[in-house]
Amino acid sequence: MSRFWNPLIEQLEPYIPGEQLDDSSIIKLNTNENPFPPSPNVIAAIEEEARTKLQLYPSPAVDNLREEIGGCYGLKKEQVFIGNGSDEVLALSFMTFFEPGKAIKYPDITYSFYPVYAKLYQLDVEEVALEDDFTISPPSLFNAEGGVIFPNPNAPTSLYMELEAIEEILKNNPDQIVIVDEAYVDFAKASAASLIDSYPNLLVIQTLSKSRSLAGLRVGMAMGHKDLIDGLTRVKDSFNSYTIDRLAIAGAMEAFRDTAYFEKTRNEIIKTREYFRQELEKRDFHVLPSQANFVLASPAGIEAEKLFMELKQAGFLIRYFNKPKLENYLRISIGTKEQMTKLLHAIDYIIEK
Amino acid sequence: MSRFWNPLIEQLEPYIPGEQLDDSSIIKLNTNENPFPPSPNVIAAIEEEARTKLQLYPSPAVDNLREEIGGCYGLKKEQVFIGNGSDEVLALSFMTFFEPGKAIKYPDITYSFYPVYAKLYQLDVEEVALEDDFTISPPSLFNAEGGVIFPNPNAPTSLYMELEAIEEILKNNPDQIVIVDEAYVDFAKASAASLIDSYPNLLVIQTLSKSRSLAGLRVGMAMGHKDLIDGLTRVKDSFNSYTIDRLAIAGAMEAFRDTAYFEKTRNEIIKTREYFRQELEKRDFHVLPSQANFVLASPAGIEAEKLFMELKQAGFLIRYFNKPKLENYLRISIGTKEQMTKLLHAIDYIIEK
Repeated sequence: MSRFWNPLIEQLEPYIPGEQLDDSSIIKLNTNENPFPPSPNVIAAIEEEARTKLQLYPSPAVDNLREEIGGCYGLKKEQVFIGNGSDEVLALSFMTFFEPGKAIKYPDITYSFYPVYAKLYQLDVEEVALEDDFTISPPSLFNAEGGVIFPNPNAPTSLYMELEAIEEILKNNPDQIVIVDEAYVDFAKASAASLIDSYPNLLVIQTLSKSRSLAGLRVGMAMGHKDLIDGLTRVKDSFNSYTIDRLAIAGAMEAFRDTAYFEKTRNEIIKTREYFRQELEKRDFHVLPSQANFVLASPAGIEAEKLFMELKQAGFLIRYFNKPKLENYLRISIGTKEQMTKLLHAIDYIIEK
Repeated sequence: MSRFWNPLIEQLEPYIPGEQLDDSSIIKLNTNENPFPPSPNVIAAIEEEARTKLQLYPSPAVDNLREEIGGCYGLKKEQVFIGNGSDEVLALSFMTFFEPGKAIKYPDITYSFYPVYAKLYQLDVEEVALEDDFTISPPSLFNAEGGVIFPNPNAPTSLYMELEAIEEILKNNPDQIVIVDEAYVDFAKASAASLIDSYPNLLVIQTLSKSRSLAGLRVGMAMGHKDLIDGLTRVKDSFNSYTIDRLAIAGAMEAFRDTAYFEKTRNEIIKTREYFRQELEKRDFHVLPSQANFVLASPAGIEAEKLFMELKQAGFLIRYFNKPKLENYLRISIGTKEQMTKLLHAIDYIIEK
């Protein structure tokens, strides 16, 4: 605490990201990163941009990237907003669309940054309990006073909600914004972006950190009705005009253009996920039916926390949440098949010993 | 306006940055960019980083860069905060240290983002009038209710305040934070960073966009007492854990390491500034004694706005502020000597015709 702080600062409970270790001997499966590097075209575009105009400001409106992304989803550039990672897009969205005194709804087990934003903007929150099988009950998110936010697939449950259910949530919040946080959607059935032209209250947020292998580049986006994008832009331009640097713009453009590479690596991860899930089930683990690039699994024959600790000692970093309902579960990112096989061997060794 | 916006959003008056045109036939002297590219070492470091781990998150604490920058100023890494451009550092500082209901003080002619942040965070403001010669009177910034912020050198006046005067402001605000925004200080006499160990209420903010030729990379920093940096970090980690991407970290490291390149380009710009100032004075322009990488000048024989418009037509972009006290002035960034000579020829042609 410092006497120079605004009194609110003391009350914040900042987000704690998964450990980022710069030790390449560790197999890092704790922050849902992509095991594959970005497309070679992304790297070439960054190198080209670095050699040209780094002394000049980037475009504050990022029109070219908004157009490129819009094109992928059948949207106009006026329906796309770009931010410095989807965390920034989420932070700006909380500020733009939610309002103190009107409770927002989100699931009680969800992305742990939501309560942090709520504290930062002094928002009231109604945390909605998941069902016993960890699914979100759509009616639990109906008739929110101040808006709705949830990830699809949800994190850390990995569970996907069908678009029909999302439409029900949208219809039952006609005067409130519904934010669908699709960080992991490229590993799932379908994006809600196809609903944007039908629902002016829908904001879809995505990131390039997972399926596009660009966690290190910090690019995220929101898609929705032009009025929603205009609101986000007003707030962004009152906070920081140039949030996306030239290299990130150049790299992100290519990440959306090289669809072949995107499809190949995404499908590889989905295949490895299914392999890994089956292997865990053979070992009697309870594994939720993931549509993300991670699984949430409850081990058999050993406590989750103990397995987490022993795997860490063995050089495997996964994620354990010491939280109600999750104390028997582990969240494991999907790496390469080779990494997952090594992990399975380590699990076998730990459980058998 | 949209019914889904928080009511505050309608009242915002977003910052409007100088025009960013992607037309290389234009001589662009309107946003105080550096005419020189960054050090070749910066570019090499970015290329190297792009080829390695872009699929992994960057370090959320950015310890290596904080240590590097601290080393340049005789500070510990705990006294350094890194942000996504100094605009983000300013935005987070307004949120961390200023409080609604307690008026903050800044000059009435200053960086035009300050009133934008004040609106965003609903802060009360006491704008303090500059002297007739455009200098800031230090006593006008004494005894602020809610804190002080001013650029040194000030923008767009280009005028520098001596450190002794800054110390007076610090001593006369013992219980309030004093933020010195040093975007242009590398073109001036000295940074207030040397005062940090003596004043726990001093926060110094800098950017790599001007003297380090990295406007396109988006890196800024704050330096001050550890408690101030801790407060900023709490807010950052409640907003966006990873604000600086891997490429920006790698490039910024080298920008601070290659001191020879930094000194050479900075001195070249200072030399060109003095040449340009003398040339304008030969033409009876009134030029303020700049310690920045731009000059504020009042033309002779033509109205400022007319000269601005005609220069634009002739392919030279400079900045005109249609604001009280500034209506007879133009802000002109310092480019290469060749660019400034071309600009002088264009000015001569326009005035003589």
